Amino acid sequence: SLHRPGQRSVDFPVSVVLPAGGTGERTGLQTPKQFCPVFGRPLISYTVQAFERVSWIKSIVVAVAKENMDLMKEIIQRFQHRKVRVVQGGSTRHRSICNGVLALGEQEEQEAAEGEPKVVIIHDAVRPFVEEDFLFKIAMAAKEQGAAGAIRPLVSTVIATTSEGFLDHSLERARYRASEMPQGFTYDVIRQAYQRCTESDFDFGTECLHLALQYCGTNAKLIEGPPTLWKVTYKRDLAAAESIIKESLCSSGCVITGGSAQAVTLADALQKSAGALDMELDVIPDLLGDHSRYLLKECNFIQVSVNPSGLLELESMLADVEATNRAPLHPLVIIWVCLSDPEELSVSGKTPEFAAIADAAAAAKLRNILLYGIQLYQSKDAERWERSVMRVTEITSALIRERSPALVGQLLQA
Amino acid sequence: SLHRPGQRSVDFPVSVVLPAGGTGERTGLQTPKQFCPVFGRPLISYTVQAFERVSWIKSIVVAVAKENMDLMKEIIQRFQHRKVRVVQGGSTRHRSICNGVLALGEQEEQEAAEGEPKVVIIHDAVRPFVEEDFLFKIAMAAKEQGAAGAIRPLVSTVIATTSEGFLDHSLERARYRASEMPQGFTYDVIRQAYQRCTESDFDFGTECLHLALQYCGTNAKLIEGPPTLWKVTYKRDLAAAESIIKESLCSSGCVITGGSAQAVTLADALQKSAGALDMELDVIPDLLGDHSRYLLKECNFIQVSVNPSGLLELESMLADVEATNRAPLHPLVIIWVCLSDPEELSVSGKTPEFAAIADAAAAAKLRNILLYGIQLYQSKDAERWERSVMRVTEITSALIRERSPALVGQLLQA
Ligand SMILES: [Mg+2]
Ligand SMILES: [Mg+2]
Repeated sequence: SLHRPGQRSVDFPVSVVLPAGGTGERTGLQTPKQFCPVFGRPLISYTVQAFERVSWIKSIVVAVAKENMDLMKEIIQRFQHRKVRVVQGGSTRHRSICNGVLALGEQEEQEAAEGEPKVVIIHDAVRPFVEEDFLFKIAMAAKEQGAAGAIRPLVSTVIATTSEGFLDHSLERARYRASEMPQGFTYDVIRQAYQRCTESDFDFGTECLHLALQYCGTNAKLIEGPPTLWKVTYKRDLAAAESIIKESLCSSGCVITGGSAQAVTLADALQKSAGALDMELDVIPDLLGDHSRYLLKECNFIQVSVNPSGLLELESMLADVEATNRAPLHPLVIIWVCLSDPEELSVSGKTPEFAAIADAAAAAKLRNILLYGIQLYQSKDAERWERSVMRVTEITSALIRERSPALVGQLLQA
Repeated sequence: SLHRPGQRSVDFPVSVVLPAGGTGERTGLQTPKQFCPVFGRPLISYTVQAFERVSWIKSIVVAVAKENMDLMKEIIQRFQHRKVRVVQGGSTRHRSICNGVLALGEQEEQEAAEGEPKVVIIHDAVRPFVEEDFLFKIAMAAKEQGAAGAIRPLVSTVIATTSEGFLDHSLERARYRASEMPQGFTYDVIRQAYQRCTESDFDFGTECLHLALQYCGTNAKLIEGPPTLWKVTYKRDLAAAESIIKESLCSSGCVITGGSAQAVTLADALQKSAGALDMELDVIPDLLGDHSRYLLKECNFIQVSVNPSGLLELESMLADVEATNRAPLHPLVIIWVCLSDPEELSVSGKTPEFAAIADAAAAAKLRNILLYGIQLYQSKDAERWERSVMRVTEITSALIRERSPALVGQLLQA
């Protein structure tokens, strides 16, 4: 759901360097922030994916600290990244970027045919929400001007301080901008800038655009970027990133009915009430034929069953999902909605349904699938029935949003 | 739990002006961000509380747009704010602040004895995490120097742009700072600054510190503030604010045992396993006598019961909590942990326990109390018992963290 097909393409080779050597002291976290998990997946994997899904980006080099190289290689394997190579970072940001740029000149055999990239995009591993449209603008401007960089309006007034810690003057906000990422350079410009710059630049410089200007005479084209370019800096930013990813994961789902009239009626009612919670549900009879495409979408699935056949339907559906999604990027949510006859009051904390869903959930969890159950009772009282359906929808929406591993295997009552 | 008693006090009158006239167009939300709810409570109420709990702050004036004055008055009543007055804001930030400052000169009768404030602190309604220590520093420096303001290191390089949109030069980061809030002024300085400044300052100026310098010759003392001064600007920041508030709400709880040996054993086991999840649990027999202080703390409560007396214990505890917390600032979480005999397998989706907790939860929800149940079974198998206890702890921690209204009244199985 994070994928948006690109509408424009570039006709020259573009590569990406992601400096990710940071140690994350500002987050207040033990783990460097680029490796912090969001829904079980490290932040840097989202950033890599943001570039990988752009068809015209040929290769990505990630520069990480020596002690994190194995971790980065594991991430690449676990989340099935292609296009990515890991190189050792340097002691500063500029040294890491430089190592990445030099690595682009040492392509491996299968890539050698394509030759050096024409344009190199430099980005931060902790800005996972960069979009194809904006990358396109940066790449085109870099090719034309030699260098291009994202800017944003200043969020605070910038002031100059006296050496004694008093206000000297404040800057006129309109003349200045915050320099952000991504930035783009022709390969020649960025390579030359690093060849010519000093040790002091390597150690204390922060701005690639400045090096391009100073050592290659290249005035970068500045392009105003969207707020989504924002950088995960503090621990609180991880919660913000999670909320953005959550929104993309939670806005839709797929209800599977099995085809019985009762199940279809319930599914239609759920679909209708989900609209009020800003959730869009598709209703399908099964995952066969054309409907199997839902399996590829890392969808939230809701299996509606009418007792007692329900558990078998659930098991077969789980098998389909597991077979297709051997390494889901996020925990997938599957909710089993079980419509029971109110006369059958034997359903208890220890009955087969409770035990079966708990066991199935424990097994599914190992495959990054979060399984929950919701039980509701058939009713001829229209008002009571509507209330039950609304409860199922609310619980479904909460389970999909929270993705709480601690609650898997519960059979909730609607 | 957000409260920290102040260790230092000031011996002069300090008042606060909160400009809150913004319409929130940058959040991507309908509601202006200062009025957006976090756990059911508008952001501005957290900010007001941050000042109210500081003993040496005498009064707070909030300046809001005309159309939001009734809303603000409702918030003050609902969350029982004292010390606060609402005035109508102006068409710009400076006009709103000015209205607030002028209102401080028109004290109501009961306040008149104290006279005008010596120092006025100006803060943003959307920076709810300001701490007493820092307010103390700002107030003291303002009294001494006439003006004082919070600064933070720049998060991005600041660059000057040419009129054609190219890089002109980048600023030397070490010489500049971001100007943040709070700022403090002697009442005389800030009043004079607004008396003397131009219409253009009122309409286009952003920096009170600048007005104090230009119109009163007062060079503000700049004080580096903590990252918690950060401002809620975008929709994602609301999620970040929620995560910070969540952390303060979720790190502790109080387990009530009723005193039976079985319940005490379970409570002690929960206390031990909670440590692994960074949650601190106190274990007490009841809420009587000295223990009634927990009722005042807006604590998370866990009632451990041994069947069948459990529901009565829960009801009596709920009554105590409701009686003490008539208007809780956040939804309170109460979890009923019910230890059942494995021989009694009759507990079902329709039995008294399920129905009773669902009914109690529906009633409690109206009073801003979120009630959940967890059932576990006595076992003589030590390993199985430990696993159950760990499950109870994990579910408890998840329920307390998520505070999901959709899941109240469920009897979860551990
Ligand atoms: Mg740079
Ligand atoms: Mg100001």
